[in-house]
Amino acid sequence: MITHLQFLLCILPILLATTSATTASAVMFSGSEEDLYAEILRDEAVARLNQLGKVSDADGYLERTFMSPASVRASNLIRSWMEDAGLTTWVDHMGNVHGRVEGLNAGAEALLIGSHLDTVVDAGIFDGSLGIISAISALKVLKSNGTLTNLKRPVEVIAFSDEEGVRFQSTFLGSAAVAGILPVSGLQISDKSGVNVQDALKENSIAITEESLFQLKYDPRTVWGYIEVHIEQGPVLEWVGFPLGVVKGIAGQTRLKVTVRGSQGHAGTVPMSLRQDPMAAAAELIVLVESICKNPKDFLSYDGHCDGSTVESLSNSLVCTVGEISTWPSASNVIPGQVTFTVDLRAMDDMGREAILYTLSNRMYEICERRSVSCIIERKHDANAVICDSELTSQLKFAANAALKRMTGEIQDEVPILMSGAGHDAMAMSHLTKVGMLFVRCRGGVSHSPAEHVLDDDVWAAGLAILAFLGTHM
Amino acid sequence: MITHLQFLLCILPILLATTSATTASAVMFSGSEEDLYAEILRDEAVARLNQLGKVSDADGYLERTFMSPASVRASNLIRSWMEDAGLTTWVDHMGNVHGRVEGLNAGAEALLIGSHLDTVVDAGIFDGSLGIISAISALKVLKSNGTLTNLKRPVEVIAFSDEEGVRFQSTFLGSAAVAGILPVSGLQISDKSGVNVQDALKENSIAITEESLFQLKYDPRTVWGYIEVHIEQGPVLEWVGFPLGVVKGIAGQTRLKVTVRGSQGHAGTVPMSLRQDPMAAAAELIVLVESICKNPKDFLSYDGHCDGSTVESLSNSLVCTVGEISTWPSASNVIPGQVTFTVDLRAMDDMGREAILYTLSNRMYEICERRSVSCIIERKHDANAVICDSELTSQLKFAANAALKRMTGEIQDEVPILMSGAGHDAMAMSHLTKVGMLFVRCRGGVSHSPAEHVLDDDVWAAGLAILAFLGTHM
Repeated sequence: MITHLQFLLCILPILLATTSATTASAVMFSGSEEDLYAEILRDEAVARLNQLGKVSDADGYLERTFMSPASVRASNLIRSWMEDAGLTTWVDHMGNVHGRVEGLNAGAEALLIGSHLDTVVDAGIFDGSLGIISAISALKVLKSNGTLTNLKRPVEVIAFSDEEGVRFQSTFLGSAAVAGILPVSGLQISDKSGVNVQDALKENSIAITEESLFQLKYDPRTVWGYIEVHIEQGPVLEWVGFPLGVVKGIAGQTRLKVTVRGSQGHAGTVPMSLRQDPMAAAAELIVLVESICKNPKDFLSYDGHCDGSTVESLSNSLVCTVGEISTWPSASNVIPGQVTFTVDLRAMDDMGREAILYTLSNRMYEICERRSVSCIIERKHDANAVICDSELTSQLKFAANAALKRMTGEIQDEVPILMSGAGHDAMAMSHLTKVGMLFVRCRGGVSHSPAEHVLDDDVWAAGLAILAFLGTHM
Repeated sequence: MITHLQFLLCILPILLATTSATTASAVMFSGSEEDLYAEILRDEAVARLNQLGKVSDADGYLERTFMSPASVRASNLIRSWMEDAGLTTWVDHMGNVHGRVEGLNAGAEALLIGSHLDTVVDAGIFDGSLGIISAISALKVLKSNGTLTNLKRPVEVIAFSDEEGVRFQSTFLGSAAVAGILPVSGLQISDKSGVNVQDALKENSIAITEESLFQLKYDPRTVWGYIEVHIEQGPVLEWVGFPLGVVKGIAGQTRLKVTVRGSQGHAGTVPMSLRQDPMAAAAELIVLVESICKNPKDFLSYDGHCDGSTVESLSNSLVCTVGEISTWPSASNVIPGQVTFTVDLRAMDDMGREAILYTLSNRMYEICERRSVSCIIERKHDANAVICDSELTSQLKFAANAALKRMTGEIQDEVPILMSGAGHDAMAMSHLTKVGMLFVRCRGGVSHSPAEHVLDDDVWAAGLAILAFLGTHM
């Protein structure tokens, strides 16, 4: 079965070739702004995003890392907004901020809605914050119309203290603790100045111990599921012209380090025919990486290591990136003796990713052998894909469609189903409970940059979608 | 006309494919060692190379840069060997060491024989030193057999103070001063610690001024020509099985800096079809650089910018190297926004080099346009080829053949004619007078490394060839 997104991705090259790109533009709304809670879900949410975006440890740009002074100020601000929405709040031993409403049945499994309050260095104001603020805003609407207590299960918003991993080079400290997958050794990881996680918490009067870390883990029997709203951080929604998209899963990832060794020599004295040049070899390998990942069909069908569905799935989700490369000795007049580069390879289908890695490695070794250079391919990191829960995905899709219909008054094409190439707190939370995610369009797909931008009306759409989702839990 | 080397280079791939490589091995000599001055030209020369190779500013490896303490010790040693050979010696205002014999006619144009006494960092013991020592040894033979005074013109050995340019990042300080092409501003270039050339000389009691720099220049009317013996620093002589080769010219060089700019993005979130990836583009460009330089015929004949002889000449001399590459921001999980790399391109034929650059640039721009990335190609350095004088080349070839014949007693194939891809003092000296060069085989083509090696018998062959050359000036 071909999904809507698969269809859209198939026609993208045609769109690119024949028409100017669909640029991000506001949806046309039909209902009155008051009916659609524009004041809370758009105006106040955007104002809060801007306000939170100014809470920074740096002058002139946004930087908020685990347990930094700005992070603590941000926690207090978020906590005040949670209380403003009628939630009971607390900060846990990992610095996560919680806001909870028990609803009609405090003993029922809780719906968790989260994202992260930390940022990268020189960050945008939407990454993480949008998911927290839109959840709080949606609950504030329920409070304002008196339906907050009608929720048939507890709903808890969690602002996770660390997802980006900037300070400790270890992602998901906050959500991993809640999901119970953060090892005790995680408390001893040190930042650049030698302060470890435990110390950083202690400096903020949080005395985490082995035991309290263990207690941070939620009992899976008390949790119904986890949803997260996040900016897409990619260009697909903008290209297909949708403010929202539903995430079918988070891609699995492999990171390779490829080392090519050849024969170092003087750039002027070794004839081309006598060279064993690792730079020219690496260039051919990188072209191969791109070819395989652009057209896996051409390579997998040839090798016969994949069935049709895997190939189809790979064609729609596989992305490969060479982000780092270096030569040795790195002089313009020396044929390098060694070239090293990274390959970041992501796909929804773990088996397919393995098949690609198998084919890629074989082809790489063939090229290196033909060129009489040596190749070492090391797997430095592996993470399996996370598949979003089908029930949650279906509910989120319904909610997103309903939100867009309410805003435009029109029956729209159904919102696209996307994969997430980036990691999110939902990855950690999938170890605790079923997860679902909603993506929000961002301008040009730009993220991790002050140029990161989400239209005010798209912030509104996100809030309306959560509101619609909460409506299914009344 | 196809030269011997062109023929050899043509058959190299066949040699490589069908036989094991011709390894460097000693020639079989027939004359008695005494007749052939083995004691001076081989044993003493090799001992002096080893002795000079120990004169270093560093512990454990060889480093001797312009006017360093080790360079001054090396100058004194060379000067003593020059005097031992019967030469009148002096050190000029640029630190060059001169040893001269006037011969029968002190007013005749002088033959200059030189090479450099400085080294790279972690150098081999033959680069530069071999040319100085083999010239001194050959003159010592003339002194020892009483014929030094029979020379019909003055002969002067010059050990140049700087060719590698390690200390001041400016090559040919010594020979450029003698050739009169070193600008006055050259005295003000500073090393890493802020000491300039003038200061470095002053520290060694050499008070160079603008006027004395001008006086360093030799009057062209007093010079007959310049020859230089140097290790090949490449693998051709070893592959073709000759201890010596005659240099037909020193390649012209262009250094490019290529900057490719694309669209920076998250490695996981931008579908392959929407990428403008400068790394993949750079890889394709580097593969192109190699293809064009390996097979210029395929590209130039297609573009029609070259006549047959240019294409033929290029096919035999063109070498291209990508030695440096960097990405920005250089993270494994970020599609780079920018990739920069260098291209070092050398050829004997300046017109051909321009034709290649024209074709290469056009093809590069085509690739960048197709990939929707921007390319900036900057020419950072250009040097035209130096063609060795045909009379000198012919005399050196005769001398080299005679030397090899004396050593083996056999009529050999004629010594190969090579191009030099590396720069040498002869490049600077070509601005003063006609130049000729003789290359000596080195193991594996390795240079600028402690692994640099020349067989004792090849040192001997070099000395015998200079001796034979001097014989034509009696």
